[in-house]
This record gives sequence, structure tokens and C-alpha cells, in this order.
Amino acid sequence: MSVAVVGGGIIGLSIASRLVDNGADVTIFDDGEYGAWNVAAGMLAPGGEAAFETPALVRLMSSSAERWSSFAASLGVDVGYDETGTLSLAVTADDVAVAAREWPSPALRPSRLRELEPALSPRVRAGVHRPADCQVDPRRVVAALRERLGDRIVTKRLSTLDEAGAPTVVVAAGCGTAALTGLPIRPVKGQVLRLRGEPGLLRHVIEATVDGRSVYVVPRADGEIVVGATQEERSDWTVTAGGVHDLLRAAIELVPDLAECTLAETLVGHRPGTPDNAPLLGVLREGVVVAAGHFRNGVLLAPVTADLIADLVLTGTTDPMLDDFAPGRFA
Amino acid sequence: MSVAVVGGGIIGLSIASRLVDNGADVTIFDDGEYGAWNVAAGMLAPGGEAAFETPALVRLMSSSAERWSSFAASLGVDVGYDETGTLSLAVTADDVAVAAREWPSPALRPSRLRELEPALSPRVRAGVHRPADCQVDPRRVVAALRERLGDRIVTKRLSTLDEAGAPTVVVAAGCGTAALTGLPIRPVKGQVLRLRGEPGLLRHVIEATVDGRSVYVVPRADGEIVVGATQEERSDWTVTAGGVHDLLRAAIELVPDLAECTLAETLVGHRPGTPDNAPLLGVLREGVVVAAGHFRNGVLLAPVTADLIADLVLTGTTDPMLDDFAPGRFA
Repeated sequence: MSVAVVGGGIIGLSIASRLVDNGADVTIFDDGEYGAWNVAAGMLAPGGEAAFETPALVRLMSSSAERWSSFAASLGVDVGYDETGTLSLAVTADDVAVAAREWPSPALRPSRLRELEPALSPRVRAGVHRPADCQVDPRRVVAALRERLGDRIVTKRLSTLDEAGAPTVVVAAGCGTAALTGLPIRPVKGQVLRLRGEPGLLRHVIEATVDGRSVYVVPRADGEIVVGATQEERSDWTVTAGGVHDLLRAAIELVPDLAECTLAETLVGHRPGTPDNAPLLGVLREGVVVAAGHFRNGVLLAPVTADLIADLVLTGTTDPMLDDFAPGRFA
Repeated sequence: MSVAVVGGGIIGLSIASRLVDNGADVTIFDDGEYGAWNVAAGMLAPGGEAAFETPALVRLMSSSAERWSSFAASLGVDVGYDETGTLSLAVTADDVAVAAREWPSPALRPSRLRELEPALSPRVRAGVHRPADCQVDPRRVVAALRERLGDRIVTKRLSTLDEAGAPTVVVAAGCGTAALTGLPIRPVKGQVLRLRGEPGLLRHVIEATVDGRSVYVVPRADGEIVVGATQEERSDWTVTAGGVHDLLRAAIELVPDLAECTLAETLVGHRPGTPDNAPLLGVLREGVVVAAGHFRNGVLLAPVTADLIADLVLTGTTDPMLDDFAPGRFA
């Protein structure tokens, strides 16, 4: 069976890899530019934003989170998959009032939080530990998938799906999906920083509300620390003074020792958002399947997307978990 | 007359240019790396820090400031020399108490300050206008001097002054002067940002005390805005999260619209500091003249240094203005 996958980001490559595992003849068309995976922190938090998601999306996220461990193992190299868990924190009393709505368990006291994470600021007032929330390094995942898929990946920007020249085309082009299909996917800009410090400064992924602002701080084993992210309804690629300032202020407020770290990278990425911010997953028309619009959850949703979209392409049957995510639902 | 100048920064090139104008046969040895001029904002403020300088240094700075207009004109190209003047500002009452010690005239009211500079934050409490303080773009000055001096500049890092192979050597190697001469010059790290915004957002060079911290904001005609600088007794080249945060916080506090600007560059430079933070200018020993250790004032002091050091090399007589800056004064 011959399949073209349009888009060489984490979603397209994961689908292509699953198709290849099942014997399909796959060509991936990638435009050669960095996608959202290059900026993403790689937090795998199925319940992290449950308060704002529909039950169908929470189900999809949970299912994907369960698949991540074996998906990571299948890549055969270290992709930074880490199960230490996440701390969800709040600084001011107002921050507690906002953040605690999403906390799955009673708040831990500050002294207990600092036992878990000694570098936390004394200003942190409350928080919870989420042992089920994991992390992975998306850059390593993409590198591993590229290595597996080798010369099946063609660096070419397609203007139309016809150029893919295959009887079945899977469109997994993130924000680029809009121009190729007409589907309503918009870029939602995010500014992200990469710091570099002594490995071991932080033990957990931290997500927090700091003086009314959401921030996450994701330490990697090698000393890299990802700090993100702004969320702006814009498509430009500008790193702004205000964006960087807001991220640094919140991160240093949470963990004062971050001030000593190197500011190694300032980055911009674009989340592919849809009108309901849930992904578009399924058949668009005869011969065209869509897997796009994953918004903030592309890394988390990669394994379940790969499994269910590959099944759909290979067998023609749509898993019931995808029923709420039909690409044509906004038509 | 054959002269070698060691150091191709703004001091070495200015001296070399003056020597060439007077008929000397000059070779400049430059290590090919960016010097402090690449990071410097180019504020020409002879009185800006008068409260902390000796009378002899204030005299030298004033003399150099008077020479800048014709020095800039002599370069034959636009080097961003601008005489709009500087605003010295203070935000909190404590900031006013600190800053006003250096103000040469009574404080202007906030409403008058915002007439002069409409983008100022309403938090700015007081300030003065210093019409005599100018600015120049040090990168353009160095480019113009390099263009004039052409293939007289040799890209080579010297290990000893003997390698210069000239009867007279002028050492103008900034922080590198210490290793070449044994003189007590230490690097004082400064982190600096370059923003990019709409030209015209700011009309003046601004230097301010903001919540206890000194910051300057230097707008160029093309929309570039230099924000600086940290002052750290360190020699590393690390751009830190804390350094960038402190600069952005102070700058945005002063001029809120800076938050919308692009953060184009994050830079580190090293001021060449001496035990008394005044420069080393004069004969070190037979055949060796030093012009180094200009600390925060290298750009301002370039014209007077060029004139007086070139005279010294060509005539053997030391101008009385240099009496307090003998290189051997710490021996």
C-alpha cells in the first residue's frame, strides 16, 4: 500500500513510522523548517488542563499518555522519557484560587513542596505533586523518528496535495494544513526560552501560576531547562522584549537560582489551533486523511494519533475515540 | 617613523588613524575578536558620572567630548553622531535621592519629562535633560576606522610585544593588555541587549535609576535600541537569565512600549578596569606606550586618547592632561 504523509513533524513522523511498521510503502514530504516540536517542552500531562477540555479530549489524552512509555521504548534510543512527575504550584493567594481548581488532590504545604524540590522560592504558597505526568524531549523524538525513516523523508514543500502523487495522503502539516486543505487551523504563537544550568538544580517538571501568569519550567537530565510559554493570537516570529521578560520574571520568581543559568536560546513556535482547540483527526475526503490541529498537545497526542490514524489508513475503519474529532466538523 | 599598534578596537584604531594622518608608517595587530566597542552603547556623557570621577578624569572626559564632533566628521561617513541630548531619570523616591546627587540642574517635573519623551512611564518621578550629552554608534565608528586603515590591519594575536617587530609599540589591547604588559587591568563583565522597534519610539538617550538599578536605553535612528548594562566582576561570556531579566525589567519599567520591541541580540562585553578605574595612558618603558584600561569610557575617550598618544609617539612629549594616568602608577 502506497501512502504519502505531508508534514515531517512529530505527528507526521509518528504516523509514518507506524505505517512502515505495518508494511506500507510511505513517503514523507517535509518543508525542511522547524515545526512546533522544536520549541515544545514535551510535558506529557493528560490531566494538566482537564478543567478546560471536553471529556472526549481528556479520554484521547489519557489514552496517549498510557501509550508513551512503550512508544518511547520502541524508538530504541534515549529520548529523555522521564516519569519523575510534575509539581503544579501557585505563588500568591490569588494564584492558589485559580490553580487549585485543576488540582486533583489537596494542596501540599510549602515545607513539603520544598522537600520535594529544594530550589523553590519561599514565596511558593501551595501546590500538588502529579506523579503520573511525565516528560520527553521532543527534539530527540523527532531525531529518532527521522533516523528510523531515513530516505523515506523528502525535503519538499508541497503547494497542493496532488503533488504528493499517492492514492492515499495523510495531511499532518500542523499550521501548514490550513493552506493545503482549507481547514480552519490558525497559528497561536508561543515564545519559549532554553536555559542551561547545573544538572540537578531541579528534580521535577514544574508548572505554575505566578502572579496571574502561567509558566512551566522543564529540566532535562543534561542541564537544559525549558521555560515557556507565552500564548499569543499572532503568526509572527518575533522574540519580544516583553515576552522574554514575562517568562524570566515568572521563572525566577518560582526558582530564584534560575537567574544564574545561561540564557541559551530564545525561540518562537506556533501551536496549530482549531476553533475548539481540539485536533482534526480522520477522513477529509476520498484518499485524504487529516491529523492536525493538536494545539498545545501535539507531543502528548503523538502515540495515539499514530496508532489510530495508521489503523484508519490501513483498514478504513475509524476508531470510536476519534468520533468527536472529525476534520469536517466546522464545515 | 614605524609604529606598531597592538589592538584593533576603538582606541587602537583611533590612535593608528591619527598616526597615519601625521605620516607615520603604522601596522595594527588585531586578534580578530570583537572588543568592548561591539557591545558599548556609545553614550558620550562627560558629566554623567562626575560625582564618582577624579577632577583629572573629568577634565580628560570633557576634553574628549569637545573633540567628538570633529572626530566624527573626520571619518567621512555617518557614524550615528547625535546631539539630541540625554535624559537622566529616576523612578521611585529612593531612586531620586540616589540619582539627583549627580544632576547638574533642578529636577524637571514628570509632565515636562513626558513632553520631552512621550513614551516614558507615568511612574517616572523626576529627571533632568542634559543637552550636552551626545551619542555615537561604536560599531559604525570601528567600521569607518577599519575602512580608512585598510590593509594596515593584520589579523594576528600577539603573545609578546617583541612579535610586533617595531621600534615603537602602542599597546591598546583593552583587557588583553594585562597579559602583554603585566599591568593590572581586569575584565568587568557587562551584559547588554539590542532591541529593535519602530524608529521614533524614543527621542533621547535615557539613563536612569529604576528601583535601585542603573540602566541606559539608547535609541538609534534606524530603530535599534541598546539597553545596558550589568556590571559584574567576572570574566566569563555567559548571557544569564538574571542579567537579561534585570535589564528588561528596568527598561520596560521606564518605557512600557519597549515590551513590544524585538529582542534582537543578547551580548556580553568586558570593560577593561584598572585599580582606580581610570585609564593607563603614557610611556611604560623605552619603545612601549600604553593606551588601555578605559573601563566604561573607551568610546568617549577615543578622540583625546588618539590625539595625545599620537603626539606622545611622534614628539616624545607627554601632555600635562596625561600626568595623572601614567601606566606605572600602581607599580
